[in-house]
Amino acid sequence: MNLLLLEEADFVAHDRVVLSDRRLTHMQEIHRAEVGDNLRVGCIGGLMGSATVLRLQAGEAELQVRFEHAPPAKLPLTLVLAVPRPKMLRRLFQTVATLGVPRLILLNSYKVEKSFWQTPFLQPASIRENLILGLEQARDTVLPEVVIEKRFKPFVEDRLPSIAAGTLGLVGHPGPYPACPRGVSEAVTLAIGPEGGWIPYEVELLGKAGLNPVQLGDRILRVETAVTALLSRIF
Amino acid sequence: MNLLLLEEADFVAHDRVVLSDRRLTHMQEIHRAEVGDNLRVGCIGGLMGSATVLRLQAGEAELQVRFEHAPPAKLPLTLVLAVPRPKMLRRLFQTVATLGVPRLILLNSYKVEKSFWQTPFLQPASIRENLILGLEQARDTVLPEVVIEKRFKPFVEDRLPSIAAGTLGLVGHPGPYPACPRGVSEAVTLAIGPEGGWIPYEVELLGKAGLNPVQLGDRILRVETAVTALLSRIF
Repeated sequence: MNLLLLEEADFVAHDRVVLSDRRLTHMQEIHRAEVGDNLRVGCIGGLMGSATVLRLQAGEAELQVRFEHAPPAKLPLTLVLAVPRPKMLRRLFQTVATLGVPRLILLNSYKVEKSFWQTPFLQPASIRENLILGLEQARDTVLPEVVIEKRFKPFVEDRLPSIAAGTLGLVGHPGPYPACPRGVSEAVTLAIGPEGGWIPYEVELLGKAGLNPVQLGDRILRVETAVTALLSRIF
Repeated sequence: MNLLLLEEADFVAHDRVVLSDRRLTHMQEIHRAEVGDNLRVGCIGGLMGSATVLRLQAGEAELQVRFEHAPPAKLPLTLVLAVPRPKMLRRLFQTVATLGVPRLILLNSYKVEKSFWQTPFLQPASIRENLILGLEQARDTVLPEVVIEKRFKPFVEDRLPSIAAGTLGLVGHPGPYPACPRGVSEAVTLAIGPEGGWIPYEVELLGKAGLNPVQLGDRILRVETAVTALLSRIF
């Protein structure tokens, strides 16, 4: 936790918050904070700044907060991701938030197992919890938008073309395709497939929506590694 | 497991292997392999090719193997990493092997907690196990070399200069430094710090050894994400 993220409900005055949950535990056990110490804070969806510890007890801390600057810019990106297996999903939400993705669309695909859709990690409260962990890591305050699209064809045919319009549309896909571009300055719509990749029909439909395949070399990457690798290369 | 990695002890003839461990379980439960099926295989430290399942029983499988091509090229890189916390270390070995790092030096640093050195994940058998998982993911056969350096100063003063000589020397470090270069074609020596970063004295000594600080922006990345992000941008 490199930033203490504050919610509206934490405020007891316009410049004071009271904390009593995992953030208090973290302040005490990791930061070993004491009265008078300063910590970095951010307001979810808002500004960042610093806080001074006014009062620190076993079950509660009171902090005085000052907000001074905007959070870091997001990437100019819509990320479309085939739903990965549940054990990857939690870390993926964290990574996506850490890297500054503003909008994540989780999509079905032929090789996504039906059971993946049943995971509790797709519940809104769980998604939010993991996005917040990622924001705390990066020092950002703005939650990415997460959209869930359970049907591939209607999404790719009806909604993706307008999302991709005016952006550089890319599909991460192993094979004899151009190398993924570097240091792009325009907005990007990037789709990343499931383990085992998109099937040819899906690549074709993504292409009709304006997303063209690019590759990163012979090595097969885990989804989370592929997301980080593609975004670091593109932006 | 995108590649079945074979060890010398698996061979019962020059073109036949017998498997009975987690690789057999994986073949049966994930690939749902049957007699006559073909699988991608590689020989640790050697060539890659394919195998045909000759015999498949509850506790044992026999495969006929053919080796046809070389594994993918490694990156022209020596990666120097401050030892991360144990729970990150396992995945880091996997990621480093997946990304094609040929040589990893794990280094002490002021902000590395002493307890991190006690983890069983630094035992040679555990390191090898996780490197192999990373190679299986990427489809590579060549184990990265892993060197452990428990003392920062003698390593950086006495041994690092000759490692970095003739390479582009970089230290990933947040701050007012040049942006990390993109698409480098020369050999690189890259040092990545612990959570909380290198201390100024360490950055100074790394500089004297020929490694200069570069940054990736305002966002603070977990070590594993930083490794993937830096390597994807540099190469």
